[in-house]
Formats: sequence, structure tokens, C-alpha cells
Amino acid sequence: MTTPPGFTAAGVSAGIKRHPAGTPAPLDLALLVSERPATTAALFTTNRVQAAPVLISREHLERSQGLTRAIIANSGCANACTGDEGLAVAREMAFEAARAVGCPPEQVLVASTGVIGVALPIAAIRTALPAAIAALGPDQGAAAARAIMTTDPFPKESSVQVTIGGRSVSVGGMAKGSGMIEPMLATMLAFVTTDASVPRALLDRALHEAVEHTFNAITVDGECSTNDCVMLLANGASGASVDESTYSAFADALRSVCHELALGIVRGGEGATKLVTVRVTGAASPADAKKAAKAIANSPLVKTAVHGGDPNWGRLIAVAGRAGVSFDLTRAVVTIGPTVLFRNGRPFDDAAPEAAEYLKRADIVVGVDLGSGSAGSTVWTCDLSADYVRINADYRT
Amino acid sequence: MTTPPGFTAAGVSAGIKRHPAGTPAPLDLALLVSERPATTAALFTTNRVQAAPVLISREHLERSQGLTRAIIANSGCANACTGDEGLAVAREMAFEAARAVGCPPEQVLVASTGVIGVALPIAAIRTALPAAIAALGPDQGAAAARAIMTTDPFPKESSVQVTIGGRSVSVGGMAKGSGMIEPMLATMLAFVTTDASVPRALLDRALHEAVEHTFNAITVDGECSTNDCVMLLANGASGASVDESTYSAFADALRSVCHELALGIVRGGEGATKLVTVRVTGAASPADAKKAAKAIANSPLVKTAVHGGDPNWGRLIAVAGRAGVSFDLTRAVVTIGPTVLFRNGRPFDDAAPEAAEYLKRADIVVGVDLGSGSAGSTVWTCDLSADYVRINADYRT
Repeated sequence: MTTPPGFTAAGVSAGIKRHPAGTPAPLDLALLVSERPATTAALFTTNRVQAAPVLISREHLERSQGLTRAIIANSGCANACTGDEGLAVAREMAFEAARAVGCPPEQVLVASTGVIGVALPIAAIRTALPAAIAALGPDQGAAAARAIMTTDPFPKESSVQVTIGGRSVSVGGMAKGSGMIEPMLATMLAFVTTDASVPRALLDRALHEAVEHTFNAITVDGECSTNDCVMLLANGASGASVDESTYSAFADALRSVCHELALGIVRGGEGATKLVTVRVTGAASPADAKKAAKAIANSPLVKTAVHGGDPNWGRLIAVAGRAGVSFDLTRAVVTIGPTVLFRNGRPFDDAAPEAAEYLKRADIVVGVDLGSGSAGSTVWTCDLSADYVRINADYRT
Repeated sequence: MTTPPGFTAAGVSAGIKRHPAGTPAPLDLALLVSERPATTAALFTTNRVQAAPVLISREHLERSQGLTRAIIANSGCANACTGDEGLAVAREMAFEAARAVGCPPEQVLVASTGVIGVALPIAAIRTALPAAIAALGPDQGAAAARAIMTTDPFPKESSVQVTIGGRSVSVGGMAKGSGMIEPMLATMLAFVTTDASVPRALLDRALHEAVEHTFNAITVDGECSTNDCVMLLANGASGASVDESTYSAFADALRSVCHELALGIVRGGEGATKLVTVRVTGAASPADAKKAAKAIANSPLVKTAVHGGDPNWGRLIAVAGRAGVSFDLTRAVVTIGPTVLFRNGRPFDDAAPEAAEYLKRADIVVGVDLGSGSAGSTVWTCDLSADYVRINADYRT
């Protein structure tokens, strides 16, 4: 996230996250600062329940006309369903960060992740803020990426370089998962920066397009959170300007970063041991294709079978059949890796051992051709393990 | 199922289910026989992929004009996605049973449950059929209920008595779950009998109404199977006739049996340790109410929190918010048991310990008022445990 020049970051401990006695306090407060006001695009959760930081960030973006100097984000508490007090706290977070950075409050965006319905201790954030400001540096992106983690097993960062108009441009970002993940958009936090100069309308378009095929094409558990957002800041420090003629180079770079972050979220999904690519083809429409792919990717029976390395291809068909899309069993094809297990209305069960061998891999591809048209969609998910249950059975207590 | 006079049943072992070497072969072939042709109503899976026994049973019901003498059902193999061979096998099952019982083949219905895409060994069924015929008895309902089990931890049976037109009438039934359960209708097998005489149209209506609030109001994992059906046979042996004037007494009795069987399926859900009643109120429409209740009942985050006894009420709100229904956060109310945890837009987190104590029970009720109207819906589900994963990770292999 600090690969593009002009951005600094910090990750410190504010004491919001609970931790076992005797262990060091984990990082839980992240700061991202842009030297100059950066043009900003953002997408927020589609959940009808929107957390206080989401409401405040939306309001600030409107008031600042899409210019941002800083993002302040905490983990350990979602500040969602916390009423007027929660709104006041989110506003205060932005206000305190703005004062420290030296900008109007509306040029600060806020994000929170963690337990819903618990008051966020603003005093702890106020106390930790000077340390965060002091820690700001162009080499502190990794600390910030750790500070936004909740149940994530590892931090997610990505960056790429691209040449636009003869100048080198960077796109960098960080993200966190790892439960409540079925972005519609977007059940996670993701922050992306670039030193390109991009008009706001183009930045919006690029973010929408990138998210559709990355963060909106992943699922861990089909859940959509109250808090989640993707924020993209363009500070123009490279001197390169993105216009219609250079849009595709920038859009590709952005999509590449979002893709890597999105797959990182799935790989680090709660309890995940495998990355599963679900490819649906032969759909009557793109909407059918995505609907079927999402249904397969969210099926607990498919996810547990993959977890156990069980080539139970019948579950793929059963889900496609109940997904509410056009489906022609006599033309349908089911594959696990390169192995065809069902075609022309009949099973090839002799191939099951070959598929079982393939399922031992950590990265697997399953395919269903619906036999109903020519549209397709790819969705990424992870397996469902007993660890998912353990993690979520006592997340709060 | 054999409580109403005139019905006999049997459960035998045909060697279809695999079992550990050295252990006795489990029951896997069930037979239900009506002395006289019984008026029949049936509902089948809404999955676009329909197993061979579903297709054959539909065909037979049409040809027999709804008169049935017998049902033959096996566990251990679903005979689904098995092509023309699978259809021939299902037809053969009915034919062999009809020959043994002495009726036309179309008066026999067929059901199968188990692994998808594997050939059903018709020879094994043919061999076991004489033993099943010999075992038929009015006291063998329990054996039949065991013979249709797959991963069910216990058999499900229910019966009630009701007086209609001065005569005693019985309704009895059996069912099996316990994964791939979100009937739309109907992700399980259920067979219900009665000695009332009921015209076919009334029988259909009673079955539809009963199923809507019982088998169609439960979910274990949101999956809809390729095989499932509810079959209701009325043989008239009691001499009592059901007409419009006595319909409600019969419908109540039927609903009571279906309710008990449906809750048995949830209690015996794969890996289940708790029965969870999800009550949604304050919905803008009955459809909204059921949609929200189903979304909550299928949420892996809600189900794992309940499993862990974690009063994480924020997850209930988050799911209601993403369920695609009218939802007013400022008027919404969230309860766990008798404890209010969210109302008037703010949390009552002090009550969390009380809710945690309540969640230790085996039967729990969670409530969400959507604050948007006056419609309501109740759905039953179970918790999601590590055992669900274990059971499904190696179901096939």
C-alpha cells in the first residue's frame, strides 16, 4: 500500500483487541496517509445494516468531493449496531486523525472490523494516535496490513508496476478477511493506492470493474458484513495521468492487485486449507453463470467434500440443479481438475480415483457446464473445515 | 407408519450400504404395503436434477391415477445421475415389488437415498425382496424407519389419533434426513399413512398445507437434494371419510405428524447438538418473513455461534440486513430466548451473559423483528458443528 510514492502507513497497538494475559498486545490500529489530497473511489457493503464507520466514510466522501488525505482503521471492534454513540465515535476517530494529520475531518475515511454491537473505546484510539503518527513511514505497509487483521491467518498485500505515458506507475494495496465473506460488495476491508493521476469518474469505473471480477467473485461463507469497504486512493505523485487512451493499462494493474488480494482473502478464509476455483460454463446468461458458480462455491456439501478430498461430483450437479438457473442434465458436464466425471447424462465413476488423487492438491479447479448456453463465470472459494466451526463457535466470547 | 390398520412394513438388509468388515449388514431396504389400493398424494424435490426413482414414481402416480399398493425404498445409493441404466433399475425395483405384492407396477412407488452417481445394484434388491415380503408386518414400522436412514443418528417415526365422523382415525409416518436438507420441498424422504378415506384433491391440499409449515420450514444446510419426496397414502380402512366438514381435523392430525417428523430431521441433522427455532416477526410480507428466517437459519455464522453458545446477536442483525428483505434497524428487535439484546437502534450488551446462559440449552429460540410490518414466519434449524464437517468430508469415500 506504500509502494506508490507519497503514501505512508503505520500499524500500532491501541489495546482494542483482546489477547491472552502475558502476551504482547496485537496491532489493531492502522493509519494510511497521503502527502497530498488523493482522488478517491470507494465501494461499501450492500448490507442494509451499515456500520457507523461506513456511514461516516460515505458522508465524508460526499463532503470532500472525493478527496482524501488519510484512512484510519481498527480491528477488534466493528462499531456496528452501536446507535448514535457509535456514530459519534466514528466521527471522533476521523476528527482526531484529521487533527493529527492536519487536514479537514472530511478528508479522513474510517473503517472498523471485529465484533458487532460492542462500543468502540475511543479513548484507546485517542491515546494510541500519537504513536501511530510517529510510526508513519513508507516502509510500514506491512504493519498496517497486520493491524487490520481479525481471524486472518496472514496479512494480505499486493503491488504491481505499470508504465503509463512513459512514466512508471505503482498500484499497491492491502486487505483483510476472513469470515463473513461474500462481497456484494464487499465483505472485507481493502485499501488500494496508486501514484497515477486519475479523474474521479475513471477511478470509479476502474474500481467497479476490478471489484466485479475479484472481490465480488470470492466467497468464504456466503455472509455479507455490515462494515466492509474497498477504498482506492490516487495521489498523482508519479506525474502520469490516466485518461481513456491509457485506461486499460491502469485498469489491468488495478485488477491484478485486487485479484491477488481477493485470492489472499480466500486462501486465508477461516479454517481454509484449499483454494477452490469454481468454473461454470455453458450458462444461458452471465447472471445464470455467476448464480450457479456462487451456489456451488457456497455449498457446505461441496466445501466439505473438497475438504475431505472426496470426489463427490454428484453434489456439484445437485447444487447446479437447485441454483435456480437453466440446466440441461443431458448436456451437462462435470469436471474435477482435468477429469470428466459426468457427461451425456451418465457418470464416469471409474475416474473417481483419479479425481481423488487430484483433490489432494492445495489449489483445485472444479467445473460445471450447465449445457444451456455459452456464458461463463469464475468464482473462488475455500473448503469448509472443522476449524471454521471452531473459529466461529467462540469468536465473541 | 403401520399405526393405521391395513398397512404393513418391513426393513431388511440388501447389502447396498457399505459397512465395516466384521459388523452386521445394516438395514437398507424398506417396504410399505397397503392391503388395498390407497389414495395417494406426493410432493417431489424441486431440484432440476431429479433422480430416477423420482421420475419413475411421478410416472407411476400418473398412470395409476393416484392409487398405490406399495412403496419400496432403499438407502445407501441415490440412483441419481445414473442415466438410462438408472431409470431401468428404478422401474425394475417397482416391477419386482409389484410382482411380489401382486399388483400392477404403477401401483408401486420407488424412493432411494444415498450417494449420487453410483449404479444401484438391482440384483441385491431382487435377492433381498423375498425376505422383505416375508418380514412384512404391522409391527415392523420401526425396522422400515431404520432401513431408510443414511447419516441419521436415530430413526424418525410419529403417529396421532383423531376422531372423524365418530370414528377413530390414525395418521402415522416415518422420515429420514439428515444432510442436504432444505426442502423446497423436500430434502428428505417421508412416508405418511392414514386409514381415513380422503378424496384425492383433498389429500393433495392437506399434504401441500402441512408440508409448507413443516418439511418446507426446516433446514439443516440449505441444500436441496435430487431425490426427495413426501408420500401420503390413505387406505380408508377406518371407515371414516374426510370431506370439507371434517377436513380441518384431518389436516391438523397430518400437520402434527409432519411437524414431529420434520423436527426429528432437524434434531438429527448432521452433527447437530441443538434445535434452533428462528422466529421472524415484523416483516413487510409473509414472503419476506420466510426469506429472512431461512437466511438466518442457513447462516454458518449464526449456526456456529449457537453451537458455541456465543450470544453473538450482531450476526442475526447482519444476516437480516443482507437477506434482501425490508428491514428497519431503528425499529428492529433481536432476542435470544426471553432476552432482548438490541432494540431502538442500540445494543443491550449487558444482557449478553444472560443470553449465554440460555444458549446452553438443547432447544433454543432466536427472534428477529424486522420492524417493517406485521408478517411472521418460523423456521427450524440446527447448529453447525465440527461433526457436520467430519461427516461430510468423507461421506462418499
